[in-house]
Amino acid sequence: MVIDFIADYYNNIEHYPVLSQVKPGYLRHLLPRSAPLAAEPIEEIIKDIETHIIPGITHWQHPAHFAYFPCTASTAGILGELLTAGLNVVGFSWVASPAATELEAIVMDWLGELLNLPKPFLFSGNGGGVIMGTTCEALLATLVAARDRKLAEIGEGEIGIGKLVVYCSDQTHCAFAKAAKIVGIKQGNVRVVPASKTTSFGLCPDELVRAVRSDRDRGLVPLFLCATVGTTPTAAVDPLLPLCRVAREHDIWVHVDAAYAGAACVCPEFRHVIDGVEGADSFSLNAHKWFLTTLDCCCLWVKDPSALRKSLSTNPEYLRNQASDEGGVIDYKDWQVTLSRRFRCLKLWMVLRSNGVANLRNFLRSHVRMAEAFEKLVAEDARFEIVVPRRFSMVCFRMGVANLVNKKLLESINGSGRVFMTHAVAGGIYMLRLAVGATLTEARHVAEAWKVVREQADAMDVEGIVGC
Amino acid sequence: MVIDFIADYYNNIEHYPVLSQVKPGYLRHLLPRSAPLAAEPIEEIIKDIETHIIPGITHWQHPAHFAYFPCTASTAGILGELLTAGLNVVGFSWVASPAATELEAIVMDWLGELLNLPKPFLFSGNGGGVIMGTTCEALLATLVAARDRKLAEIGEGEIGIGKLVVYCSDQTHCAFAKAAKIVGIKQGNVRVVPASKTTSFGLCPDELVRAVRSDRDRGLVPLFLCATVGTTPTAAVDPLLPLCRVAREHDIWVHVDAAYAGAACVCPEFRHVIDGVEGADSFSLNAHKWFLTTLDCCCLWVKDPSALRKSLSTNPEYLRNQASDEGGVIDYKDWQVTLSRRFRCLKLWMVLRSNGVANLRNFLRSHVRMAEAFEKLVAEDARFEIVVPRRFSMVCFRMGVANLVNKKLLESINGSGRVFMTHAVAGGIYMLRLAVGATLTEARHVAEAWKVVREQADAMDVEGIVGC
Ligand SMILES: Cc1ncc(COP(=O)(O)O)c(C=O)c1O
Ligand SMILES: Cc1ncc(COP(=O)(O)O)c(C=O)c1O
Repeated sequence: MVIDFIADYYNNIEHYPVLSQVKPGYLRHLLPRSAPLAAEPIEEIIKDIETHIIPGITHWQHPAHFAYFPCTASTAGILGELLTAGLNVVGFSWVASPAATELEAIVMDWLGELLNLPKPFLFSGNGGGVIMGTTCEALLATLVAARDRKLAEIGEGEIGIGKLVVYCSDQTHCAFAKAAKIVGIKQGNVRVVPASKTTSFGLCPDELVRAVRSDRDRGLVPLFLCATVGTTPTAAVDPLLPLCRVAREHDIWVHVDAAYAGAACVCPEFRHVIDGVEGADSFSLNAHKWFLTTLDCCCLWVKDPSALRKSLSTNPEYLRNQASDEGGVIDYKDWQVTLSRRFRCLKLWMVLRSNGVANLRNFLRSHVRMAEAFEKLVAEDARFEIVVPRRFSMVCFRMGVANLVNKKLLESINGSGRVFMTHAVAGGIYMLRLAVGATLTEARHVAEAWKVVREQADAMDVEGIVGC
Repeated sequence: MVIDFIADYYNNIEHYPVLSQVKPGYLRHLLPRSAPLAAEPIEEIIKDIETHIIPGITHWQHPAHFAYFPCTASTAGILGELLTAGLNVVGFSWVASPAATELEAIVMDWLGELLNLPKPFLFSGNGGGVIMGTTCEALLATLVAARDRKLAEIGEGEIGIGKLVVYCSDQTHCAFAKAAKIVGIKQGNVRVVPASKTTSFGLCPDELVRAVRSDRDRGLVPLFLCATVGTTPTAAVDPLLPLCRVAREHDIWVHVDAAYAGAACVCPEFRHVIDGVEGADSFSLNAHKWFLTTLDCCCLWVKDPSALRKSLSTNPEYLRNQASDEGGVIDYKDWQVTLSRRFRCLKLWMVLRSNGVANLRNFLRSHVRMAEAFEKLVAEDARFEIVVPRRFSMVCFRMGVANLVNKKLLESINGSGRVFMTHAVAGGIYMLRLAVGATLTEARHVAEAWKVVREQADAMDVEGIVGC
């Protein structure tokens, strides 16, 4: 029944408004005040989902969902989650389910090889990969590892942690500053280097050098650089090669956050965007974004797993066991922030196998082609401008130069319910973002998206808005 | 096909050894060296799961799984996960799927009321609940909130963070010390108060007073107490009422970690174990432990959500939207460590509805009764001793007084493959733990567990072991 419900959901998905049209607080008066004392039939619950929940869903799987970055589902991903829930094992240490740990290590080497990650990131090269829920967790884990390694060097002292400085650009995802705050980096020591249109919003290595030098001159200690491949606002690419060179000189841990765009590197023609990654210490991508696994599945590779383990290991008596004591196994609890962990590699393994690498590449390429087609349509309309060169499957564009006009335009586009896009502001420019990536998106949906944009633009009283 | 596979799995589960009997590294040579280029049929994958994965599974859903704490699955929980994966929405902010946020708030009030949590923990009383993956995340989030509130009071200064002290007992889950380390509390400022057999391994309030006073005398700043209801080693209960009184006097944030035992509080007869919780600041339980949701589902309630928000909010331009700007909605990303979040409340809602509260209570009670029966069997055998009074569904016992004997006994019990138990050491005493809680466990499985224990005890050469 639930499988049928999901099948129907996907069959009907185009009939729903992409962006939920409910008002805040809509649900509370539709549901009972408290949990029922007696069991209710599953039919009843499914009916409520149809009637009360679905209207409050913003449909991320809708083929006209072009907002944020994609969060892709697929049959293999969904069935993988189903199996994970069915087996419901907790693979914190090897012994708690050897297959959960061993499959994860194997699949992370598979995916690492597909991405052509340098050998030192793979288990086969004495590094290794681990699956977490989100990039936030990957950033936290690597930041803590880098922090503790540095503090061991310079001495924890009274003010050790207060001296540490981390670096990013103003295009870096906010998860980084949040993770830095959580691990105790002082707010004033998060160095946000502005990126500009000149570098297509990539982080400029010379600016990094300047920031690092000035911090060192003030007696501060450079710790960590978060470089992004495929930034959230505009899918910009920070140039890894020169950035890692700077970092190495100053003994800075480099993490490469390729949450969205990393998946594209399984296609040889896109792999160059992570050239230079051999100089980084860690690399992550969200397979739930553009690699079909369903939420959540953040893949993190590190060159030095012992750095993670030194910071994140726990060894309480109640978890001790012979296999761990003998040391020949991976206990993933020591590689991550959380103890309990879901058997997430199962779905990643299933996605890789049931699609095959060739189809996965074609899937990614098809999205890029659709974005190219959209870019072309935008470029042909004199009212519009492509703000930054299209990267991957994302197009950033605007109508004229007035931010307010574009804001209103986006509101009316999303108000139509026919598509859902979001916006970014970079270098002071407000732009609309079309991120192609939903599993069901076809060329016709992108064409339709352009039609909606044009129609809403046609209907707009631009002078009225700019005048006010 | 996958549903059938899962149904068969549960039908056959009793035929598997509970604890996986594979050797480290078993899987690598069974799988190909790299991901396949061409798609493979799902039949093939399922066959591999049967042949290669299942032997490496330690079966947490096996009715004779008595190890660690339970991690319970159920039809409603599994179907909830399936729906979550099918809809695959990312509810970081209200607008990204209003139903995901609103259902979570409603269900957390439902469950909070069932637990008879004081009103200030509920949305209806200006507190509120949030679902995270794990207790580790709940501890991190509350620790950071408490830390930043305190630093705002005393001034961040150069050494502010270095002065903060956190408290727990030596029975507290290791997740707490790990979370403290992550947020930058100095290793030397994690005050671990020893608990003893005299207080049945509960944290003694007088010891807490002593520790706090001594820290204050040295110019340190007490920050946080993690009190546990149902400790991992022995299911001990820290006395909340006097502990919270001490904490209030010294302005210490109290978190109550009821990861396993919290669920029992939906039964009125067990609710007294959290008497005094009205003096705490936050309370969490893992619904995936003993409340049927499947992993992961940690429910956290706080009295002051603004403390979480002050520490964990982010407001990047690309996530800005009208509903959030107007302020009348919950954006759960600001309540937790991670940005992306799964639609976890769906399964909790389905568990509550499809079982009904009455059945859920009976389910928990039946486990407690089975543990009582086991306790009785142990007590009747003169070779054995109940080490601490049984709490909830957990029995801690040993054979004689030699730790080594009990270690060997546990090894031979688990080596049988017929049951899986783990151990604890508290107050220097090595003990075996029988934690009843798997969804399929019946009285006969517990009786069988006792049979295995006795048989292995009979077969042991106790003198040989003690002699060596
Ligand atoms: C570049 C980048 N990094 C990090 C994140 C945050 O990902 P998560 O929600 O998995 O922490 C995102 C999400 O969109 C992103 O685009
Ligand atoms: C009392 C207690 N707290 C915390 C945890 C850790 O839970 P999680 O894995 O959800 O972080 C456990 C796990 O067994 C526990 O028993």
